[in-house]
Amino acid sequence: MNVAVLGAGAVGTSVVELAGEYGHDVVAVADSSSAAVDDDGLDAAAILEAKRSGGAVGDAAPEAAFDAAYDVLVEATPTTLGDAEPGFSHVRRALEADRHVVLANKGPVAERYEDVRALEADSAGTVLFEAAVGGAIPVLSTIADLNGQVTAARGVLNGTANFVLSRMAAEGLGYEHVLAEAKDLGVAEADPSFDVEGTDAALKCVILANVLYQETYTLEDAEVEGIADLPGSALELAAEDGRTIRLVGEVSDGRVRVGPRLVPENGTLAVSGTLNIVQLETTHAGRLNISGRGAGGPETASAVLADIGRLPPAGRN
Amino acid sequence: MNVAVLGAGAVGTSVVELAGEYGHDVVAVADSSSAAVDDDGLDAAAILEAKRSGGAVGDAAPEAAFDAAYDVLVEATPTTLGDAEPGFSHVRRALEADRHVVLANKGPVAERYEDVRALEADSAGTVLFEAAVGGAIPVLSTIADLNGQVTAARGVLNGTANFVLSRMAAEGLGYEHVLAEAKDLGVAEADPSFDVEGTDAALKCVILANVLYQETYTLEDAEVEGIADLPGSALELAAEDGRTIRLVGEVSDGRVRVGPRLVPENGTLAVSGTLNIVQLETTHAGRLNISGRGAGGPETASAVLADIGRLPPAGRN
Repeated sequence: MNVAVLGAGAVGTSVVELAGEYGHDVVAVADSSSAAVDDDGLDAAAILEAKRSGGAVGDAAPEAAFDAAYDVLVEATPTTLGDAEPGFSHVRRALEADRHVVLANKGPVAERYEDVRALEADSAGTVLFEAAVGGAIPVLSTIADLNGQVTAARGVLNGTANFVLSRMAAEGLGYEHVLAEAKDLGVAEADPSFDVEGTDAALKCVILANVLYQETYTLEDAEVEGIADLPGSALELAAEDGRTIRLVGEVSDGRVRVGPRLVPENGTLAVSGTLNIVQLETTHAGRLNISGRGAGGPETASAVLADIGRLPPAGRN
Repeated sequence: MNVAVLGAGAVGTSVVELAGEYGHDVVAVADSSSAAVDDDGLDAAAILEAKRSGGAVGDAAPEAAFDAAYDVLVEATPTTLGDAEPGFSHVRRALEADRHVVLANKGPVAERYEDVRALEADSAGTVLFEAAVGGAIPVLSTIADLNGQVTAARGVLNGTANFVLSRMAAEGLGYEHVLAEAKDLGVAEADPSFDVEGTDAALKCVILANVLYQETYTLEDAEVEGIADLPGSALELAAEDGRTIRLVGEVSDGRVRVGPRLVPENGTLAVSGTLNIVQLETTHAGRLNISGRGAGGPETASAVLADIGRLPPAGRN
């Protein structure tokens, strides 16, 4: 397929780099200040080199990406809350042009799911968003294949928070110390509040709820508690009882909850470091556990490209 | 789709029971002695009741199933080695009639993979076989979605052997004692050799190798060692070192190997009881771990029905 990529951060550039391996052509790439467009297929290496050297993606205005002969729009701009802009408008524009949309951006499908589905219903295009939940982990495709059988989902969906908790438990270090270390290692952002306050995990759970239930959810419907106030002594007490603490997101009985939870120290949910895990409860197939890398450019791009492979043939005429 | 089910054991009857939930009609069911056929859709409850009471599936000869107006043949007869008959002939017949085939039977895709793919190439039908590897675990669909990215696979793929090893390690009991217990619980067959000698796990690994590599494998290409000769003392020694023993199948570097292996006691591969786990090594997405129920009628039927959902539209005219 012909792919247009919006967003040239870690995920967007990885999609550009790997698309060829999956048999796709990248015909447009845009970040917030410029775009490169070529309906015969862009030179991925040149784009990547331009971004690495801090230069512009291309000579065109960002808008020009929508004029490309693309079959699928990859929306990989940063996640925003509330109106989920500008991601939502990008999705709208592609669907109104009967193109497919694959999202890595969580905003539109967490905050405006009903609007996205309404636009999709009026479009020849299809919307997929595997990359928005659990990075490389095939959560949403597994839920889709199970065709309504999944009744609940639970998991560790934020690698930064999990790294902090793993390190605090393993080394007996305090929250601030480990968070500083995580920033040094590039595991935590300079402003880690999105991760440690549980917002990122909650958005992923809201997306899962939107997929699992008939009702539509937004971040406002989630009960969210982060790990910033968690004392090291809580982890010590847990360890004395053979347990540890993880930031667990849960979607069950129509509720979305995220918070620190006691889990068995060697149990399935106690993944370590930046790993993510999702548990799916099914009516006929028991519990499925899927773990892997929940973030990272190439890992998340793999999920985007898997989605592209699952799309029906091009929607546009 | 219209589904014809061959084999009326635990998997076949579960497919009959659950097909309606997935929006499919069962138009034929056959076991080795009889068949029920109705192009308007069979009454699942009546079929299940007939099987439960030990009666015949229906009034027709088994052959009659092929005359039904089916879109997809579900091959759930017992796995056989060597020429993989009669499963292979069932697959051939459906593909020659341009119908899709979904296998739970491992034989045709482990022992005659090249023949199956050759028949598929000449057919409008498609062959899928998720249920043949790891029961409810979505292994093959994940490999397909990753589009050539998976370089190696490793896992615990036989629940009976895993139950025996888990119990031996946890209770310090001997092999014969635990095996007798497993038979009482229905976890092991009366003749458990297929499971404890590693044949079943090896067939699953051969299927994985056939999917991952260009070359074609059969059971003869696998290096297989079972657990029947494993002394309890080996598990004790492992435990002293924080490890345990699992029957691990591995597909890597063009080789297929199955045998008892030391794994960390609390590590990812040390699933307990009858659980299965598969680890996939990928080029861009790191390692993915998927665990769940590797056997059981409804669990395996879920994989069959997920395959049916992934099929292209009906092949026949």
